[in-house]
Formats: sequence, structure tokens, C-alpha cells
Amino acid sequence: MIKVGILGYGNLGRGIECAIREAKDMELCAVFTRRDPKSVTIRTAGVPVVSVSDIEKWTDKIDVLMLCGGSATDLPEQTPKYAAMFNVIDSFDTHARISEHFAKTDAAAKAAGKVAMISVGWDPGMFSLARCYGNAILPDGTDYTFWGKGVSQGHSDAIRRIPGVKNAKQYTVPVEKALAAVRAGETPTLTTREKHTRECFVVLEDGADAAAVEKAIKEMPNYFADYDTTVHFISEEELLRDHSGMAHGGFVFRSGSTGMNKEHNHIIEYSLKLDSNPEFTTSVLIAYARAVYRMHAEGMTGCKTVLDVPPAYLSDKSGEELRKSLL
Amino acid sequence: MIKVGILGYGNLGRGIECAIREAKDMELCAVFTRRDPKSVTIRTAGVPVVSVSDIEKWTDKIDVLMLCGGSATDLPEQTPKYAAMFNVIDSFDTHARISEHFAKTDAAAKAAGKVAMISVGWDPGMFSLARCYGNAILPDGTDYTFWGKGVSQGHSDAIRRIPGVKNAKQYTVPVEKALAAVRAGETPTLTTREKHTRECFVVLEDGADAAAVEKAIKEMPNYFADYDTTVHFISEEELLRDHSGMAHGGFVFRSGSTGMNKEHNHIIEYSLKLDSNPEFTTSVLIAYARAVYRMHAEGMTGCKTVLDVPPAYLSDKSGEELRKSLL
Repeated sequence: MIKVGILGYGNLGRGIECAIREAKDMELCAVFTRRDPKSVTIRTAGVPVVSVSDIEKWTDKIDVLMLCGGSATDLPEQTPKYAAMFNVIDSFDTHARISEHFAKTDAAAKAAGKVAMISVGWDPGMFSLARCYGNAILPDGTDYTFWGKGVSQGHSDAIRRIPGVKNAKQYTVPVEKALAAVRAGETPTLTTREKHTRECFVVLEDGADAAAVEKAIKEMPNYFADYDTTVHFISEEELLRDHSGMAHGGFVFRSGSTGMNKEHNHIIEYSLKLDSNPEFTTSVLIAYARAVYRMHAEGMTGCKTVLDVPPAYLSDKSGEELRKSLL
Repeated sequence: MIKVGILGYGNLGRGIECAIREAKDMELCAVFTRRDPKSVTIRTAGVPVVSVSDIEKWTDKIDVLMLCGGSATDLPEQTPKYAAMFNVIDSFDTHARISEHFAKTDAAAKAAGKVAMISVGWDPGMFSLARCYGNAILPDGTDYTFWGKGVSQGHSDAIRRIPGVKNAKQYTVPVEKALAAVRAGETPTLTTREKHTRECFVVLEDGADAAAVEKAIKEMPNYFADYDTTVHFISEEELLRDHSGMAHGGFVFRSGSTGMNKEHNHIIEYSLKLDSNPEFTTSVLIAYARAVYRMHAEGMTGCKTVLDVPPAYLSDKSGEELRKSLL
């Protein structure tokens, strides 16, 4: 059995707890929290909730520590820190800072003889795999990634910071016409506006100026100005009732040509339609935790990503079973 | 530079020759043939065509030998034989005999200290990867594989063996309604008939009985009896003009549930739309030839499949470049 620990009991931590129940070769040993452990109630009987200040006492009791913090401030500090004590895995998703995060984590993990896997989830994660396979197979081609329909936390937060806004949710929506053109092999050049639209559901503070809020959203640079944005004003009751779901998804395409005269076109499409973004992310994390355990058992050390992992390492089946049932 | 040899100059061999031009880290060194080398004209200037009887003289001049024979009779013999002399790669696609082919090839490659990669292409190959990732991430779920629209060589051959048939092409076509149900997360149980239809274009011999041929096709066990089959009688001119393309494709789905009460469903879809089946297959083979070369350079030996290969090994980019551009 692979002994798993969880650090941080938010959406991701709860998703890990749930996904472990499907993994017959894993057991949850402890949930570590920065809060008072007495204030945290988990859903698995018999598993202790432990203060993170006591985590060093667990170094020989945990095979893989799942880091469930956020990418903005938690993981840049936590992943290198805990890679010095445990095999770890995180879902660091700030694309622009992955190289820096990799370098720090790699140094810590190598020094400690541990494996640390970063940026596991669906983007980065499964979408990165789709891009890597697509580029390797069709070197003469074009990549397209579309996200949604799903809530963007960053864009929802940006709306909530506007004066007069009480609460808000923002959906990123891929443009059907653009998807159809890519699928048809037209290899279109798409502007930001042509790829996604943004749909906002906003609850105003009492007495706020709706027109001013709508203008502030639609003209916000980077976040909304380059998109066709729709703003709906709704009640807080409607927001909680109709927009609390965590569905998400997206599409990765590789469109490329082969042939002596590039006369043949090929479209590879990978898509996800997810009822629960955090639960799918944690399902990916659990599969890669198995790989972390195996890679460490084989003597590997240092920082790894999904690009470094043989697919068979994600499965609890033997090579022979996989060749028989899935190849 | 990775030195590549091709054994067999049919559709696959020509596809390899073409795909190598896109691989900046590879060079084609020789094409080996069972025919009289003088009778074989290849499209790359300066590359020798060599009789297969002289292949043993090339063992230190070739890094990876691409085996371009057929799965029925060529590869079961060729792959173990040449794995004793070279690192090899094949596209063996008889699913039911993969275990046997793996065992023989593994023994030969291990004894010789070589890497032999088998069953590389899109099914088995990229579709196997989609199934493996899908099963590992969503262990509580259902697999669906659909093929087409594309020509099935086996089914076309079966029609051509019917008395009175001069020539024929058979298309396997996925049923749109079934695709839609899977995509909608309905997790349908689908019979053979509900998944694919079969469309046949047949040229009759002079004086042949069309009704008898149509009956013979539609009632043929295994091949057609379990499907809704359409038969079109056309002229040989029409067949050559309209049905000589090698387009193909298909879809792999994993539909699975997560959540404490399995309340969330997720759909992973991987699909291919290919203008040229052999050219796409050879593009996959070329990417995996790079992996064969690297795995051998790292000291690995024995038989491998796509399930054993870290995605990064398929690319000519460094790990750092991949993390920056694709992760």
C-alpha cells in the first residue's frame, strides 16, 4: 500500500480524500493543516488531522505528500520546503513561473533524495501531454487550446474587486465557430476575441451603479477588454443557486500536415468535459502520486512533470495486464 | 543524428521516408527490400536501396530499424529476428496476438542488448495511450472506442474474395447517435450494430449476380452480419476515382464518475481525423523511433510499447524547452 498524506484541506484536499477511495493500492494516513486540527472535520474515519507544525514527525510514515495549496503564494514556498522531507506532488498552475518553480523544487528534492512532481492536473497536466504528443507526432503544425465552458477564479476575483460589486462568477466560453474551423482543418489564425467569450454574473451592493460596474468590467485591461463580454446582474440567491457548480473543461488541438508536398492534413483533438474541476484534478493527482512512488522506488530523484512519466506508471495494473486489456 | 533504416518499401516505408524529412535529428541511411534492389526507386537522393540478405553488414551503421511489413505474416517473424541485430520498431496491430509477439520480441531483444518497440501507430498506439490515461485517472468508468470513417483493409479483402466481385472498398462508419450519447455522459451500453455501420463500394465482374453478391456480403458472419451494411455497385473507374483515398480516424472516450456519492461525471475524448492513415502512422513511428534511440542509449533493453515511454522522449526539444513551451 502507498501511504498518502494531504497538506491543506480545501477543495483539492477533499477531492484527494475522495479519489483515494478508488485507489486500491493507496491509503490515506494523515491530513495536515495550518488551522487548529480540532476545527477540521474530515470524511474518512480513523485518519488523524495533524497540525502542519508536527509534519516532520511523519517523514517515515508517508510515501507521497499531496500538496493542496494555491499556486499564488502557497506552493512556491511549500513545494521546495516539503520536497526536502517527502516525495511530493503539486498542481502548480502559473504557467509563466513553472521554470522557476521547477528549479527550486529540483534542487531541494535532489538534495534530499526525493521525487517531487509539479504542475499535475489538466492544464498544466493532461493538456500539456496532448500538446507534447501532438507536437512530436506532427512537427509541422499548429496548436490550439480552448478553455471552458467553466468558471475562471481569477476573472471572478477581478470582478469582485470592483467597487459596488458584492459577488460575481465569470464563465470562460470557447467560441463554437472557432472550434468548428479548427476541427475542419482550416488552420485559422485566431485573435483572443475570436477564441473565447466571457460571461459574467454579478450581484451588486445596495445602491451601486449597474452601468458603471458593467463599464468597469468590459473595459478592464487584460481580463476583459480584449473579449466579447456579457454582464448579467442577478440576486445573490440566484448566484448561489445557479452558479455554485464547478464544471469546467476545454479542448486541445494539433492540426498538422504530412506528405512530400504537405498534401495531407491531420487533426488530433483532446477534450475534457468535467462536472467537477477539483475532483477531476485530484483524480489526475492520485494517478501521478502512484508514479511518484514508483519513480522514487526505482531510485530516481529530483523534480518531474507529467512529460517525464511513462503512462504505465499511472496504473495499478501490471505491464502484462495493460498490454492485454488496453493496448 | 539518429541513423534510421527502413525494412520494406510499401505505404509505410514511403511514409517513413517522408516523415524523416521533418525530423531534424534523424537521417535515413538505407532502405532494405526483399525485392531486387534495382527494381526499387526511392524518393530520397543518395540513400542506397539494399537487399535484405545484406542487412547484417549494417548492424553498426543503423541506430533504429523501422519494420514496415504487415502484421499477418511479416512482423511475427521479422520483429524477433531483427531485434537480435538492431534496435527496432514495428506497427504490429493484431490486438489478440500482442502478448505472444511481445514475449518473443522481448527475449530476442534482451539477449542482444537491444530495444524493440512494438505496436506503434494509432490503434494500437495513440488510442492505447488514451485508454491507459483514461483508465488510470477515472478508475470508475467506461471505455468507448469508435473507428472511422475510414477504409478497413480486412473488410475490403473479405468482399473481394466473394465470387463475382472484381474490386471493392469498405468503409467503417461510427454511428453519430452513439457518439452523441457517449459525449452527453449517458454511458450507454452499445451493441456492435449500434456503434458502427459498414458501407461497401463494389465493382462486379461482367455478368455477376448483384443480388447474390449483396446477400453474400450482408450475411457474412463476423465481418458484416452484425452490422447495418449498405452496398453500392459502381464502375471500376468510379472506384479508382472516388475511393482511392486513405483517410481514416476514430474516437476514444473515457466516461467516469467521481465524488463521495459518484455524483460527478467526466468525459475524456481523444479523436483523430486523418487524411492519410499510413502517413499519420509513420509520423507516430518516427517520434517513437527517437524514444527507442534514447532508451537504448540509457541502457534499457527488451520489448517496449507506447505505454512504457515518457512523452518527453518523443520530442527533439530539451526538457527545459518543453516545460517552457508546452507544459
